[in-house]
Amino acid sequence: MTEAAPTAAILIIGDEILSGRTQDANVSYIGQRLSTLGIRLQECRIVPDVPAAIVGALNALRTTYTYVFTTGGIGPTHDDITTDCIALAFERQVVRHPKVVAAMTAYFGDRLNDARLRMANVPDGPDVTLIDSALSIAPGYRIENVFVLAGVPSVAREMFESLAPTLQRGAAVHSQSVDGAVREGDIAAVLSRIQTEHPRVTIGSYPQERSTSIVARSTDKAEIAAVVAKVAQMMRDIGAEPVVGPAP
Amino acid sequence: MTEAAPTAAILIIGDEILSGRTQDANVSYIGQRLSTLGIRLQECRIVPDVPAAIVGALNALRTTYTYVFTTGGIGPTHDDITTDCIALAFERQVVRHPKVVAAMTAYFGDRLNDARLRMANVPDGPDVTLIDSALSIAPGYRIENVFVLAGVPSVAREMFESLAPTLQRGAAVHSQSVDGAVREGDIAAVLSRIQTEHPRVTIGSYPQERSTSIVARSTDKAEIAAVVAKVAQMMRDIGAEPVVGPAP
Repeated sequence: MTEAAPTAAILIIGDEILSGRTQDANVSYIGQRLSTLGIRLQECRIVPDVPAAIVGALNALRTTYTYVFTTGGIGPTHDDITTDCIALAFERQVVRHPKVVAAMTAYFGDRLNDARLRMANVPDGPDVTLIDSALSIAPGYRIENVFVLAGVPSVAREMFESLAPTLQRGAAVHSQSVDGAVREGDIAAVLSRIQTEHPRVTIGSYPQERSTSIVARSTDKAEIAAVVAKVAQMMRDIGAEPVVGPAP
Repeated sequence: MTEAAPTAAILIIGDEILSGRTQDANVSYIGQRLSTLGIRLQECRIVPDVPAAIVGALNALRTTYTYVFTTGGIGPTHDDITTDCIALAFERQVVRHPKVVAAMTAYFGDRLNDARLRMANVPDGPDVTLIDSALSIAPGYRIENVFVLAGVPSVAREMFESLAPTLQRGAAVHSQSVDGAVREGDIAAVLSRIQTEHPRVTIGSYPQERSTSIVARSTDKAEIAAVVAKVAQMMRDIGAEPVVGPAP
């Protein structure tokens, strides 16, 4: 991995994730995309719709990582408190963004009301920039190194793709997987030796019901290929047929 | 919610969740089960296979919440570093648990090796207790208020059910949902009023493509019923047919 690669964290805001009602789908998408951009996702936190929890987690993450992506809590209902909390964390006022108000007025007409206008709220400051999405009239926004995104996965993805070109990139992290009908305990010693021989590749081992999936990740494709060849040979040596493929 | 309810956090350990390769499935299961046990899941963190990240997160969580559940990193391969990190966090030595060694010796016979024996490692101390699973010869364990579970969802669930009877319980949190073909922005004002009238119920609003799902949670079933009745009436008042059902 490149030493100087930018880092990132995701802050997932929502009681519904912690209660088990909703399965998060944003970490896997954003995680994969950040890998291709060479940005290292180093932590995720899931917090409830509680101001102190949101503000505390946001301040911890934004002072630790290059970028923070928040998801959830930017809708029109009483439980959407993300913007109020972001403003608290940055010690700024909440203001209504005139461009969003204009877009909402055109879109909603008579149906525009106070609740919907809350979706035009952003923290005050000339550095706050909107993140548009074709799927939602209510935008996300960037404030300093924090990107505030919707929780609904389709909208979060649109917003991520809209902001992605603005991110500082590192060397892209590539990956390959080798699957085989082997048990982790039978390959662990050789795999550990391969890891030691290739410190610039991160080798992960993931057991399935009757097989094991080995994933090699690195910014260096040639080193990945060398690891994949050794892992495949290791599997053949104990009678398993390795299947090499792309790894998300 | 009951003031004195026990609290909990989940610490998910694994590069594969952050890279997007693997979709976590343990938060939703454990989150739902904790709700029924009256234990309030207040935070989840996902960290990579990096000792400083694991130790730092574990120490933050175990000193904040009644219980911490970790998932992942207790297999036989080089990337399984959870037990070493748990021992570091508690400033204890790692020892091989004789009961697990005996069970593994009987189970694996000639196939028992150093890698598999790593799965018998636990932090030292008379208070460390094993958490058995019918699906895995390698157990999880409890140390103080921390429960160390497998990452594979089927095994994590077995281990959770095995330890669940030992947990201190609070009043169970019940929930109901009301779905209707309404838009959040059209119901937000009335919903906010209902929330204000029922402060002991947590009301969440979750938009879908063409409908909205309102979820009411509380330890008090009668209060949930009152909220559900008001939400259903609110939907009928704007021409939508509410569908009331159980909410996970």
